[in-house]
Amino acid sequence: MSLSYESSGVRYDQLDAFKRACQQAARTTAPLLGDHGYSEPATTRGESAYLMEAADHFLAHVEEGLGTKNLVADAVYAETGECFYREIAIDTVATIVNDLITCGARPISVAMHAAVGDSGWFADAKRMNALVAGWAEGCRMAGAVWGGGETPTLRGIVEPDGIVLAGSAVGMIEPKALRITGEVREGDAIIFLASSGVQTNGLTLCRAIAERLPAGYQTPIGHGDGRTYGQALLAPSVIYVAFVRECQRRGLPLNYVAHVTGHGWRKLMRLEEPFVYEITSPREPLALFKFLESAGPIERREMYATFNQGVGFAALVKPADVDAVLAAAQATGYDAWRAGTVRKQGGRKAVEVPSLGLTFEADTLQVR
Amino acid sequence: MSLSYESSGVRYDQLDAFKRACQQAARTTAPLLGDHGYSEPATTRGESAYLMEAADHFLAHVEEGLGTKNLVADAVYAETGECFYREIAIDTVATIVNDLITCGARPISVAMHAAVGDSGWFADAKRMNALVAGWAEGCRMAGAVWGGGETPTLRGIVEPDGIVLAGSAVGMIEPKALRITGEVREGDAIIFLASSGVQTNGLTLCRAIAERLPAGYQTPIGHGDGRTYGQALLAPSVIYVAFVRECQRRGLPLNYVAHVTGHGWRKLMRLEEPFVYEITSPREPLALFKFLESAGPIERREMYATFNQGVGFAALVKPADVDAVLAAAQATGYDAWRAGTVRKQGGRKAVEVPSLGLTFEADTLQVR
Repeated sequence: MSLSYESSGVRYDQLDAFKRACQQAARTTAPLLGDHGYSEPATTRGESAYLMEAADHFLAHVEEGLGTKNLVADAVYAETGECFYREIAIDTVATIVNDLITCGARPISVAMHAAVGDSGWFADAKRMNALVAGWAEGCRMAGAVWGGGETPTLRGIVEPDGIVLAGSAVGMIEPKALRITGEVREGDAIIFLASSGVQTNGLTLCRAIAERLPAGYQTPIGHGDGRTYGQALLAPSVIYVAFVRECQRRGLPLNYVAHVTGHGWRKLMRLEEPFVYEITSPREPLALFKFLESAGPIERREMYATFNQGVGFAALVKPADVDAVLAAAQATGYDAWRAGTVRKQGGRKAVEVPSLGLTFEADTLQVR
Repeated sequence: MSLSYESSGVRYDQLDAFKRACQQAARTTAPLLGDHGYSEPATTRGESAYLMEAADHFLAHVEEGLGTKNLVADAVYAETGECFYREIAIDTVATIVNDLITCGARPISVAMHAAVGDSGWFADAKRMNALVAGWAEGCRMAGAVWGGGETPTLRGIVEPDGIVLAGSAVGMIEPKALRITGEVREGDAIIFLASSGVQTNGLTLCRAIAERLPAGYQTPIGHGDGRTYGQALLAPSVIYVAFVRECQRRGLPLNYVAHVTGHGWRKLMRLEEPFVYEITSPREPLALFKFLESAGPIERREMYATFNQGVGFAALVKPADVDAVLAAAQATGYDAWRAGTVRKQGGRKAVEVPSLGLTFEADTLQVR
């Protein structure tokens, strides 16, 4: 049987009912911003970052979590002694700040939430120090201060060997014109920025695959890549803050950006307005994704609907800005390329990858 | 054997080593604030809220968690069907915003972090809706918008029936003179604000006591209080935001405030500068604390070193402001009274409660 994300046990329907209830109740609190000199921009609910508008700036707030990726690090650590908690900490900071910058906000402060089931978790100095060093490194990559955090022991809630890694960020957009608003037009170019691997999504499925492999995380992934499955999964996420900030510094407008996480490439059609996103230059899949596809096995369509497939961040820009945006990406150390074009087809919303024979219509994505 | 907090399984030493490593690494990231037009005030590390200083305001950021109180709600729900998740949500918001206002910042936005072990947690609509309603209610009490959040399913990290409740807040101090700096002087008055019960600390110990009681959480607490142990424990925390804001609005300087949480009344000596805090009017213990003391049994000294003993928030003000501060508290619905006086005794730091024969010296508190 071919594997899929739903079959690996994550029920989005139950979660989504809760998320909708939260959004509905949260909206009723918006008038409270008035006392502070802020108001809620019409379109911020459901976006990756929550924005508050003042006369001369936007304040941004994000709360995000790593998910279950650290279970992979735990398994690899137990099998080989190789500790990836530096990478896991960078991953956690990345999930937070990559969400924050999607609205154009620069992260100013990042706080850690690390809840353990037993305070003994911290008795392993090597692992504990790796987590601390990685968190500071992630903050430096994001250009943000590490502004405190919370590290409770939650026996009976968190598993005895477990740690819940999450956190929050505060950011700002100033001047307000730097806000990324989603003013996308037909003909806009789609720029892709490379990911380092799965980054932080699809890990539940990745763990299910490890259980099916005789050598588990120690299986070499091949396809010219010398790493094991565990090592490749645990490559730290790319933090895309410097790219957005460099574009802002150079005066290059980003009409929309998407942090490609859960829901894979379907995430490209997050924008409310209907467009067809035609991807003409998908990246040659990384060795890790080729390995996952055959090891699962996972259908090609499911791969692109679940994983980032080598693309961690996407920016929509006007065609005249493509070269300048690619130059800004290169100057800040990112692997970026023009991947496709935004089309208008009436009320249709879809992602199309003709060279792979893939199409995702709007009804395959419910994230707002 | 008499019960204590350490005997209930929380090891502060291991946690503290981690916290110190975090603070040390976090400090190295402070120069990154310069790019954003902020700097780190000298004394903000180790305080309850992280502050960033700009020319005309301070930005504040807090990440906090509920702890294990929801395990009490789970047990009571299983035994009686009475759902306290509205109260639990208010508790979670309270832990976050009560920390934030200790520096004088007004909470603007509060984000939720709710991580479950199984998405089935949300299938119980009564419980789910109580959580959502309570979170919104807590935000309203705090005068803050509910600015989004994160609700992951973390199978294998969070226990199957468990939920980790935490969150973050963004706040601001403007004008900067409203910052609560800790400029305490000998002779300052100590104002206490009432708590509603244990609020959010000492719950691990409370659960250990429930296990020793034949009727568990269904035990009546007596002492003139008609509630069961479970009901009394689950009274929602008081949110002290309106008190601080009203003092600010009336131009009443708060020289220092303390959110009385873990470490009980020892928390009063959080300030770096050595003072002796003499408490001459402790509150008559609530029925719940009398019950806990005898049910444990817990020694009197341990009670005050662990629980808030009916006092959730303390403010240090100059003697001439006492009446005005008490009037501000009353106007915003808080039960407040003058509880004692700040004394100077050379380099000694201590909390003294002569009427109870209790003294806590500085070496009994290590929280910075």
